Amino acid sequence: MSTRASKRQKMTESPYRLIYWPGMPGRGEHVRLAFEATGTPYVDVTNQTDEGIQALLTRIDKKNRGDPHNPPPFAPPVLEHGDVKISQTPNILLYLGGRLGLAPSPEDDVNGYYHVNSLTLTALDGLSNEAHDVHHPIASSLYYEDQKDEALRKAKDYREVRLPKFFEYFDRVLSSPASGGGDYLYGDKLTYADLVLFQTVDGVSYAFPKCVAKMKEGGEYEKVFALYDRVKGLDKVKAYLESDRRQKYSMGIYRHYPELDE
Amino acid sequence: MSTRASKRQKMTESPYRLIYWPGMPGRGEHVRLAFEATGTPYVDVTNQTDEGIQALLTRIDKKNRGDPHNPPPFAPPVLEHGDVKISQTPNILLYLGGRLGLAPSPEDDVNGYYHVNSLTLTALDGLSNEAHDVHHPIASSLYYEDQKDEALRKAKDYREVRLPKFFEYFDRVLSSPASGGGDYLYGDKLTYADLVLFQTVDGVSYAFPKCVAKMKEGGEYEKVFALYDRVKGLDKVKAYLESDRRQKYSMGIYRHYPELDE
Repeated sequence: MSTRASKRQKMTESPYRLIYWPGMPGRGEHVRLAFEATGTPYVDVTNQTDEGIQALLTRIDKKNRGDPHNPPPFAPPVLEHGDVKISQTPNILLYLGGRLGLAPSPEDDVNGYYHVNSLTLTALDGLSNEAHDVHHPIASSLYYEDQKDEALRKAKDYREVRLPKFFEYFDRVLSSPASGGGDYLYGDKLTYADLVLFQTVDGVSYAFPKCVAKMKEGGEYEKVFALYDRVKGLDKVKAYLESDRRQKYSMGIYRHYPELDE
Repeated sequence: MSTRASKRQKMTESPYRLIYWPGMPGRGEHVRLAFEATGTPYVDVTNQTDEGIQALLTRIDKKNRGDPHNPPPFAPPVLEHGDVKISQTPNILLYLGGRLGLAPSPEDDVNGYYHVNSLTLTALDGLSNEAHDVHHPIASSLYYEDQKDEALRKAKDYREVRLPKFFEYFDRVLSSPASGGGDYLYGDKLTYADLVLFQTVDGVSYAFPKCVAKMKEGGEYEKVFALYDRVKGLDKVKAYLESDRRQKYSMGIYRHYPELDE
């Protein structure tokens, strides 16, 4: 067996290990959903093993200089798979996409490979990062209470301008010929971009329930809400959401402060 | 010739077309630098052709539903290369990385392929997106003057907490064994992540000159500043920076408001 083939063999046998803050969905949830939706075995290290949060703290410690193949991660989630130790949510999903059948390979569909990545980046930007910044517009290192006035102002813009802008965009993507019918974002097939859109819509629905309910009633973004329901109803996703492996929202990216929801 | 081979042939002949807001570096600059640093011919459509800004406006118009292989872009930059029409800066760089010799292929170095993407995402998050949010902490749709009080608060945190955090991280990456000596971020070779770090450090140096000068004097981030100088001194980069193709900073992502620079 060549070195490369033997390395590939080893990777196939290596377990997928996700390392993220325990007890919250957060950005780690996108990685969990990729595993859960495909029935892929994985270890949720800080939630399910004795290593606990220590596994995370050693990896993001300033003393960590990585190894000859892996620079240290900036922040979790971290995915470890054999000798591959990578971070950044969209980067981890890119790695898993082809391996779990959640994205076309660049050889089979060059357009699709990059569009699934792009749609993921856009959903994470607008419906995860910005949703977080609404309750922390000044500094992540300060309490919400110490930036509440600013948060109230930012929330208004997020509800009135940004959320509609991103929902309009994804509705348009679902009516693009590239969607292939509007059931999924790209190529008429479930990809990790659909899982990310599901999870981010779920998150903003938790944080801004009144606002999202109003957007749903308005009927302008029917395709987005239909995709949300479609993904939520997939057998494996449904079983996961009902399991105790699904963490509850609390004080992470998505927070429900009624005053920020008009 | 097979269909795939013939398609590949066509792509090789297709020009690279970059579509971005004219007259400013912005996020398009990362794409320009990839072309310029490798001497790759490209068309900067809005700056160099009669299509002008109209080329951009039609692509981000809400009427644009894309085509059978390409959903519409959310925002510029857009890269068009034959039938491939993609957006999102890190996604475009991922596409160009292997093609321009600015990143390893996943077949040759799976770790490297994903780490170059990850380092790029981190630099863009912390030294581009956050740098923008400093002067627009409440809403992109409002003037700076209408969110100046909030910007002053956010700028303090950015200068004291966030900038040092990202510089410390990249300095540590450059001292990781994965860097291979500290000349470049990964594998002892120039990648697009180095170009992105160069450009983002250049941007924050324009926006926060006093703060960055102090960080340089402090001597804590020597490897980051050395990388900046190294990239800036590369023959092709140097020639580009001195050319009139390099756009000037003004009212884009990086803005110099002296009051935000302590």
